[in-house]
Amino acid sequence: MHVNQERLREDLEVNGSFGAIESEDGRGRTVLTGSEADRKAREYFVEQMETLGMDVRVDAVGNILGMWIPADADADAAPVVAGSHLDSVPRGGIFDGPLGVYAALEAVRAIMESDIEPDRPLGVVSFTEEEGGRFDIGVLGSSVACERRSIDETLALEDDDGTTLEEYLERIGFRGEGRLNVAEWDSFFEVHVEQSTHLEEQDIPAGIVTAITGITNCEVDIIGEANHAGTTPMNKRSDALAAASEFILDIEEAASEVVATDSASAVGTIGKIDVSPNARNVVSGDVRIRTDFRDVEAESTDYLVDRAKKSLSRIESERGVRTEIDRYRDQKPVPMSERCREALHNGAERADIEAIDMHSGAGHDTMVVADVTDAALLFAPSRDGISHNPAEWTDWDDCAAATRVLAEGIADLSTY
Amino acid sequence: MHVNQERLREDLEVNGSFGAIESEDGRGRTVLTGSEADRKAREYFVEQMETLGMDVRVDAVGNILGMWIPADADADAAPVVAGSHLDSVPRGGIFDGPLGVYAALEAVRAIMESDIEPDRPLGVVSFTEEEGGRFDIGVLGSSVACERRSIDETLALEDDDGTTLEEYLERIGFRGEGRLNVAEWDSFFEVHVEQSTHLEEQDIPAGIVTAITGITNCEVDIIGEANHAGTTPMNKRSDALAAASEFILDIEEAASEVVATDSASAVGTIGKIDVSPNARNVVSGDVRIRTDFRDVEAESTDYLVDRAKKSLSRIESERGVRTEIDRYRDQKPVPMSERCREALHNGAERADIEAIDMHSGAGHDTMVVADVTDAALLFAPSRDGISHNPAEWTDWDDCAAATRVLAEGIADLSTY
Repeated sequence: MHVNQERLREDLEVNGSFGAIESEDGRGRTVLTGSEADRKAREYFVEQMETLGMDVRVDAVGNILGMWIPADADADAAPVVAGSHLDSVPRGGIFDGPLGVYAALEAVRAIMESDIEPDRPLGVVSFTEEEGGRFDIGVLGSSVACERRSIDETLALEDDDGTTLEEYLERIGFRGEGRLNVAEWDSFFEVHVEQSTHLEEQDIPAGIVTAITGITNCEVDIIGEANHAGTTPMNKRSDALAAASEFILDIEEAASEVVATDSASAVGTIGKIDVSPNARNVVSGDVRIRTDFRDVEAESTDYLVDRAKKSLSRIESERGVRTEIDRYRDQKPVPMSERCREALHNGAERADIEAIDMHSGAGHDTMVVADVTDAALLFAPSRDGISHNPAEWTDWDDCAAATRVLAEGIADLSTY
Repeated sequence: MHVNQERLREDLEVNGSFGAIESEDGRGRTVLTGSEADRKAREYFVEQMETLGMDVRVDAVGNILGMWIPADADADAAPVVAGSHLDSVPRGGIFDGPLGVYAALEAVRAIMESDIEPDRPLGVVSFTEEEGGRFDIGVLGSSVACERRSIDETLALEDDDGTTLEEYLERIGFRGEGRLNVAEWDSFFEVHVEQSTHLEEQDIPAGIVTAITGITNCEVDIIGEANHAGTTPMNKRSDALAAASEFILDIEEAASEVVATDSASAVGTIGKIDVSPNARNVVSGDVRIRTDFRDVEAESTDYLVDRAKKSLSRIESERGVRTEIDRYRDQKPVPMSERCREALHNGAERADIEAIDMHSGAGHDTMVVADVTDAALLFAPSRDGISHNPAEWTDWDDCAAATRVLAEGIADLSTY
């Protein structure tokens, strides 16, 4: 099957011109949901699909699905769908999201131009607000399409200016009707940039995800006593920041131990810390921390929460601070569908492209979709692992290679 | 000599009503330079002095000095002056500053009513913007009066709204002319709340400060690499916040060692930390920290800076982060004048009030004044050491006791 790399590149470059920003890298974009850039990106996407004669539908929260019913296909059969999202973080890259959308479109075009005769309809989808750049809630459109969120509540979300999603979608002409029903799809594929360096380091163009990592978040409060830095003797202090420092190092150590002994894919991060009063001349009174524990093994994150609690109780008794921990979010690890993964492996073999199994440390729309239908995630290499940054880069050859694997995989599942 | 505790209390309570805030403690105030509360506090202060027949002068930056030339005094002799400041931090207490001003005024009234006949003029002063609550620069008025800062540059300082000190002073009618010349004073006394618990713990009503601690501040940058918390393996991280945590604990340990071995008065604090990007799902890229090292022995702060550098160089080599340290402020320890301290000790003996020697961990206007004339600082107990807080409290008996010591001290130095 022939994938047209130039056509794919043109789509990605044109799409990258919507919301384009000034940057050292000569590329990068800001496409927030409901912006003019978003309107243009959506209109271009719809236009490409209509040019191919695809039937385009926009649902109430702006998710866009284009369907092609091949000549020999059963129009009522469950479709094979691929796609991703077109929105970006502020000052993001041109690949995160769009690669998944336009690889899907190019795969459909390649199948159209091949002698393959699919038995199922093929779909290309772009989900609304995957990044959460506007409403601070990620995978928003896919969550509605998978019935995790209601349409009304989602349309009523307000951004920092008090403007709702509904107003934004009406403004750009993408407030459609009803909801895409992902549960009715036969299967779903998403191509995404890896955002890490496993593929680059091994010089392999394609990674087939076995499971998406689970995420457990805790909010931790450490309450000491704010006091004058000049007049409070060292042995009279209840310094919340020093206590928090011990906790941060305990978590780092615990996560490294899990990696060394039980599960190489585990990570534990404290990247968010708010200190009060955060003044040079005041011993810290309160610290609030958010922990981020991830692994494809749910046992790892349970163990890390346990270690966090033990650390806090030790710190309480040694330092006379009070602590609280609230495990406020548990996203279980999501295994990818075996038959979808097999289709991708078969596709890689047919296309003669080396592919390895790997896990994903980030969620993407696939994480949500996998709850309601068979789904798989395919990674293309990210230069230096950089993402959410104008410097984000995936070689055009690698974009095309992933698209070939995807096209073969779609062909595999859409023919009986 | 008789100090009138009720009169002192009334002054402090009336003063505490200007800028009064709602608080659990039923007291507390916000008096920022140039506010209506500041105008009222200043007008009341001036009125009290004028009622006594004192000659009141306001200088260009709003410092207020009332002078009394006793009947037998040499009008040209260098005066003995006491005072403090009337401004507060936001939501501050009613004693920090005003106690020093009104103890000075009550001491002068007590001397007026006694049979003591001073040979020198006596002054009561209130310096502008000691707290830095408006312009973020503390001891501002005293710095001008001690020729550390120029009048013009100080008047041109702008607050966050772009309003200058000069505009604020003109607005409230306290933009005077010239500058108080502290260098011409014979001596200076300041009564202040201790803001720590040494006096309370020993149940002693008066502390005579031997030296004000020196302060050394460093700005420390720790530069790691911001990366995705889900996709960056533990062994590929360069986590600036984890590195900063080691540094914070090293500093705490180093300061505790100095206390245990060399100088019990040393303190080392890290209360200010800015983390970038400070997001739950991102490994920290950069951390900026401010260190605060204080002691009455300059060797201690030198040693702590040295330990900070060693810690950073170890962390650099172990964690692959880059670090920078800038020692941007060195305030040397300031010894108090022997003859002023002796006058206070004599005063405490005459008043039959127990007083101990102690150091001060905070600066106050006296720190600046001591550069240009003989000065001393007298502490009254702070309940639980709490200050810069509506809960700040000093018993009225203790306020009066400190005032008696002060009055005797002033009498001592103003009679030949």
